[in-house]
Amino acid sequence: MSGPELASRAARLTPFRYQGDKPAVLWSFTGGFPDPAHFPVRELSDCLAAAAGEDPELLQYGSSADESLRYGERSLRQALLTRHGDDLPPGACLANVMLTQGGIGAIELAFRSFVDPGDAVVVEAPTWGVALTLARQLRADVHAVPAGPAGLDVDALEAKLDALRAAGRPAKIVYTIPTFQTPTGTVMPAANRRRLAALAARHDAIVVEDGTYAALRYDGLAQPSVQSFDTEGRVLRVGSFSKTVAPALRTGWVTGDRALLSVLASARSDLGVSQWAARALALFLESGQYDAHLSRMLAAYRRKRDVLDAALRRECAGLAEWSVPDGGYFFWLRLREHVDAGKAKRLARERGIAARPGEQFFGTPGDGGQLLRIAFSQVAEERIPGGIAALGEALRSGAAGAAAPERGTDTARPEGGR
Amino acid sequence: MSGPELASRAARLTPFRYQGDKPAVLWSFTGGFPDPAHFPVRELSDCLAAAAGEDPELLQYGSSADESLRYGERSLRQALLTRHGDDLPPGACLANVMLTQGGIGAIELAFRSFVDPGDAVVVEAPTWGVALTLARQLRADVHAVPAGPAGLDVDALEAKLDALRAAGRPAKIVYTIPTFQTPTGTVMPAANRRRLAALAARHDAIVVEDGTYAALRYDGLAQPSVQSFDTEGRVLRVGSFSKTVAPALRTGWVTGDRALLSVLASARSDLGVSQWAARALALFLESGQYDAHLSRMLAAYRRKRDVLDAALRRECAGLAEWSVPDGGYFFWLRLREHVDAGKAKRLARERGIAARPGEQFFGTPGDGGQLLRIAFSQVAEERIPGGIAALGEALRSGAAGAAAPERGTDTARPEGGR
Repeated sequence: MSGPELASRAARLTPFRYQGDKPAVLWSFTGGFPDPAHFPVRELSDCLAAAAGEDPELLQYGSSADESLRYGERSLRQALLTRHGDDLPPGACLANVMLTQGGIGAIELAFRSFVDPGDAVVVEAPTWGVALTLARQLRADVHAVPAGPAGLDVDALEAKLDALRAAGRPAKIVYTIPTFQTPTGTVMPAANRRRLAALAARHDAIVVEDGTYAALRYDGLAQPSVQSFDTEGRVLRVGSFSKTVAPALRTGWVTGDRALLSVLASARSDLGVSQWAARALALFLESGQYDAHLSRMLAAYRRKRDVLDAALRRECAGLAEWSVPDGGYFFWLRLREHVDAGKAKRLARERGIAARPGEQFFGTPGDGGQLLRIAFSQVAEERIPGGIAALGEALRSGAAGAAAPERGTDTARPEGGR
Repeated sequence: MSGPELASRAARLTPFRYQGDKPAVLWSFTGGFPDPAHFPVRELSDCLAAAAGEDPELLQYGSSADESLRYGERSLRQALLTRHGDDLPPGACLANVMLTQGGIGAIELAFRSFVDPGDAVVVEAPTWGVALTLARQLRADVHAVPAGPAGLDVDALEAKLDALRAAGRPAKIVYTIPTFQTPTGTVMPAANRRRLAALAARHDAIVVEDGTYAALRYDGLAQPSVQSFDTEGRVLRVGSFSKTVAPALRTGWVTGDRALLSVLASARSDLGVSQWAARALALFLESGQYDAHLSRMLAAYRRKRDVLDAALRRECAGLAEWSVPDGGYFFWLRLREHVDAGKAKRLARERGIAARPGEQFFGTPGDGGQLLRIAFSQVAEERIPGGIAALGEALRSGAAGAAAPERGTDTARPEGGR
């Protein structure tokens, strides 16, 4: 396009090309998409109808008279405060809870409130690609700190924060996914969370704690949030109903210090989120339907996780390494060195497997080539073995002449469709 | 708050103070809020249930495979293309239509895509305060061109565009509300729209044509959109269901050149709008319910407009001047010079009248002091005369010792709060 000059924030992005319909994939192991089979369609439809019947004004904009315009519908904020208030200091109230357009809306608002072009933002490597894109749009100076089996490496973080301060460019934001990290699926231990909160306070940095997947725990004990260790009002904790209920509600939230949230409120430019969706969610929570739904869904995702792990052991042993995540949607596969990852990924795509290339989770070119994120959430349980069998074939072909183990005995094959 | 430094875009804004509950107002003539009495609650609830029943995947994120993630649900885009395709060049398709988080989402995306700090953005004076705030958040260099009884003054615009180009700072965006302008309620004549489109092409500026109120016409003939005169792909036209159906659907749209929309798609950071709400709206449109609803609503708003005009004639003649708008939600009152506007506005607030001070619609301090925007949309028809009677009393008190006409014979009084 000749003509209008883009804003530099748009010009820095990969130009978008409208594709129209692409060939369907056979197995969608790609995005962090929930399983449509578990959408509580009838319950949500009923809650929406009940909410609007109870008060048609829920279809209105929020009001500035009761802060529902900038902070969101009050009964859902109250329900969130009841559930997450322990993370906040005593005396927390509705001014400590704000609804946003999904979790991404909260992250975007936090970045936008505190990051000027050139400001340092610290992220985990690897991390969620969309958060990287947000930081780049704001022309942040993005610094990566390794995330390993115990999540964010807090020693490396401390060194990074010190170095940035010494360079006169102190970090404004530390973005972390401490529970069921994207893409690695790891969990940061409590002691590291405490240290992270203290480091942020000492360095006057805001921690954006992304808790989007935190409720999706299949094994092990929940860890206290980073926010629960925050004594200085430096941690914004982000949550979402997109993974636990349904993305189309476009309802997430952020909790934190009143003063921090008032900054987000002043930066807000969206005329608020749907009060109607929020009230319907509050009814869904208050009725106990949410907890029952979540419990059923967790059992189903746990089974899928185990089916995927078993299939990987059968099909990909010796070709890739992985850990079994205690929660969330993702397996993070490291392809063995003798596997030509580029070839294997291309072959996998040709066989109808959509998975997320590791490169998308690193801010630096060249990283992540041997890595692959497999989301087990969206593919039906009975179709997972077939998909992983096809993946195993692709990896074996990618292993070229190198000695790779024979594939196992599972014979499931794609049945077509998505 | 000591501690974290705000982004300069946040620091430039008025610090937000969380207020909690404020005293209720008796007459809410303030925001551009639709009348809750006309929310099609049952129809929308039914459409939502029908949509989700038809396809539970509508509760999912949009897909990048069919561009529903970045452009929105396809059937609603098709319905919008059917209704607004005449504004676009022949051959327009779904790639020319994008759904956004209300109309504001489209405006924000357009500004964000093309405006760097210091870039020139031309707006009308007066204009919508939220758009001014958006431009300020991006640290645009905002230039105002007068909007009079015929809307944007195109001669003044041409001079402004020439001057900006001569100064080496050509305008990136011209933001205009050509139909039922906010706050003035005026309509730009077709000849001026044609000239605006040509000026934009000549100056390589993007026109953001805000059509949010365009469907709310009570009298007169519809004018062709600015976009319909666009031969160079420079006009983005914004629409919304917030004023015609309900704000809580958070569904707006933007139409325009494919290349322009692809820029917006690359700048997008919200993981899309609700496919569920979009499909429900598509069903609402396809069934004919939308047109029937709109027709009933227009008749009701027309009556409110006429009731407000009659009340103003009775209560405010000699104290203020106004034109009767052919559509939209707003009367734009200019208080006569002998009225102490500050005193009158304060008295009006004390009497329970919420209206929007004119100052909020100008980018420059000191402008708009004698002006007041009255929205007739939200106050029940039978309560309008009482509210305007109270306003008339406030204006008469503000007129101090100056000779002001006696108020008329209408004796309606407030019936208590809402």
